Amino acid sequence: MSEEVDVIIREAIPKDAENILTLLDAVSKETSYLLANETNQLTIEEEAEYLLMSNDSPNSLLLVAEVESKIIGIASITASKNKRIEHIGDIGISVLKDYWGLGLGTELMEELIDWACHTEIMRRLELTVQDRNERAISLYEKLGFITEAIMSRGAKTDSGELIDVRLMSRMIN
Amino acid sequence: MSEEVDVIIREAIPKDAENILTLLDAVSKETSYLLANETNQLTIEEEAEYLLMSNDSPNSLLLVAEVESKIIGIASITASKNKRIEHIGDIGISVLKDYWGLGLGTELMEELIDWACHTEIMRRLELTVQDRNERAISLYEKLGFITEAIMSRGAKTDSGELIDVRLMSRMIN
Repeated sequence: MSEEVDVIIREAIPKDAENILTLLDAVSKETSYLLANETNQLTIEEEAEYLLMSNDSPNSLLLVAEVESKIIGIASITASKNKRIEHIGDIGISVLKDYWGLGLGTELMEELIDWACHTEIMRRLELTVQDRNERAISLYEKLGFITEAIMSRGAKTDSGELIDVRLMSRMIN
Repeated sequence: MSEEVDVIIREAIPKDAENILTLLDAVSKETSYLLANETNQLTIEEEAEYLLMSNDSPNSLLLVAEVESKIIGIASITASKNKRIEHIGDIGISVLKDYWGLGLGTELMEELIDWACHTEIMRRLELTVQDRNERAISLYEKLGFITEAIMSRGAKTDSGELIDVRLMSRMIN
């Protein structure tokens, strides 16, 4: 990270719910790179409940990045309760544009991977990213993710254009 | 289909809920090939509500196959309400073992594809299948699905073995 910005990364707690929703809303207005699973449709109460559940879950993690008590980024691993796929963590990372280029995405991803490596349960991390989002793809590659598929028409832009989505994964041993 | 079995394929309605749950339960006991999204965790009321919603949805379809008023198979297309991915239909097909080898899987899949082709909204169908399920894969290939990825460790068997899952898709024009 740059010396000038003091960022705290910590696990989210239920009372972060409102600030997390505010962040997600801001991020979704700044970028057209988000996929559906990263856009927010929860109420504050639902988000708080989700955070409580996530805190108790052995295969979910939600981190927030704070600058002067303001949440400026989040990073998450979510996984199913179902035994057949409980070992698969779905990765999501969102950072406010003002804080891009400081290495925060890398730092958040490293924290997620490190957490996964210290669990018993996680054996695979996966993510989807719009194939035109080269910046994100190169970050994921740097951290050991490989491309498993280019999913044709995996997303639709606001103007209705069908675009490719890349499926990437990283094994956890 | 064989001449000996008279099968009716029709769209499911809310009062099929209990019989559909019974079928899903029977199928999940017969095979270890199901992935998590095909296993059932709904109550009868929730399933009925889901069927009502599905009937009203422009991008979801649930078909049942009946023999003498008994539901012996189901086939579904489910899709998100989210605009970014509303054009992507997720395919699921389950048939009781007693009725395998009669071409019912093919018939159900053809109905799903035909329905998708007659909508405005659907542009991509996708499915995941355990990579060891050669029988299903060859059915999907016959109907125009191509392999987009072999997802390493995409599922875990009941004995804890991590196995590969194949992601397949078929474009709808």
